[in-house]
This record gives sequence, structure tokens and C-alpha cells, in this order.
Amino acid sequence: MADLLNAKDIKDWLKKLPEWDHDKKHIERTFEFDDFSQGIEFVNGVAEIAEEDDHCPDIDIREGKVRIMLSTHSEGGVTDLDFEVAEKIDTLVE
Amino acid sequence: MADLLNAKDIKDWLKKLPEWDHDKKHIERTFEFDDFSQGIEFVNGVAEIAEEDDHCPDIDIREGKVRIMLSTHSEGGVTDLDFEVAEKIDTLVE
Repeated sequence: MADLLNAKDIKDWLKKLPEWDHDKKHIERTFEFDDFSQGIEFVNGVAEIAEEDDHCPDIDIREGKVRIMLSTHSEGGVTDLDFEVAEKIDTLVE
Repeated sequence: MADLLNAKDIKDWLKKLPEWDHDKKHIERTFEFDDFSQGIEFVNGVAEIAEEDDHCPDIDIREGKVRIMLSTHSEGGVTDLDFEVAEKIDTLVE
């Protein structure tokens, strides 16, 4: 099991993944695409990563905008696992 | 263009599609699946319908739960188009 991160750990991770925001008990990033279809294609990439790591983000789709939220619910907050999945998700749009 | 529906039209449609709720300017239904992967599979079916009809719902994914919200933004509310897409989405889980 991954442990809850302290403020310093989170700060260090956010330096590495500057596009992500930390908000209370989760981290999130909104990805923007030209249209709905491209957003759905991205969501499928996210799903593949989530299934491999057995760690599912919350996902909100609004036309071409896809908001990804990660939290380790069993721990009640953010762990390394969330940032590891976030880092992999970032590679989909690099 | 589809016209905004009045209260009676909406009531008639909801009789036909009883699983959907009408809330102010949209209609919505939450679909529940055994796991995240099944939810994603369903989202891909929804996307196919949305692309065919060129009418994209808002979609929220929470593990195996998928919430679909339909509104005709150009009209500022619910039109026949929303219910027609909702009816097709229902066939995915029949």
C-alpha cells in the first residue's frame, strides 16, 4: 500500500508534474482537445494506464475537455500511486 | 434546429424513457457497471452514438458509474435531440 504524502512530498511531485493541481484530497489536471472524439481517444489511453496500474481516476468529459482527478480513496488522500499514474497520463499528450 | 421542449413534451418523453431525470436545463441518467473497464466500454458506445448524431453529452466517470447529461446548449435547454440521443444510449444497456 502507498502511504499518504506529506506537504513536502506533494510539493516535490508538483515540481515534476507542473500541469497538475493539488486540491485537498486529490490531484487533478484538465486536458483540452480540439473535439469530443479526440477527448474520447485520450480517455481510452487513460483507461489503459488505469487498468494496468489498477488505479482508476475520476474523469469528467465536457466536449473536448477532459478533467482527470486522482486520489487514493483507501488512504483518504494523495499517495505516490496517484502521481505515478498522473506521470504516465502526461506521456499521452507529450 | 430542434426547439426547446415545453413541460408537457418533456413529461411525455420521460414516460417513454423512465430511467432519465429532468433537471432544469438538462436530462441525465447514471448507469452502473461492475467495474471501471465496463464503464469505459459503455462510454465508447455512447461516444459512437454522439458522433453519429453530432450531439455530445457531458460524461462523468466514477469507477463503474457513468453519469450522462444531455442538453442542447445552443437552445439553452432540452430539445427532442437530447431525448433521441438518450433513447439510443438506453439501447446499449438493454
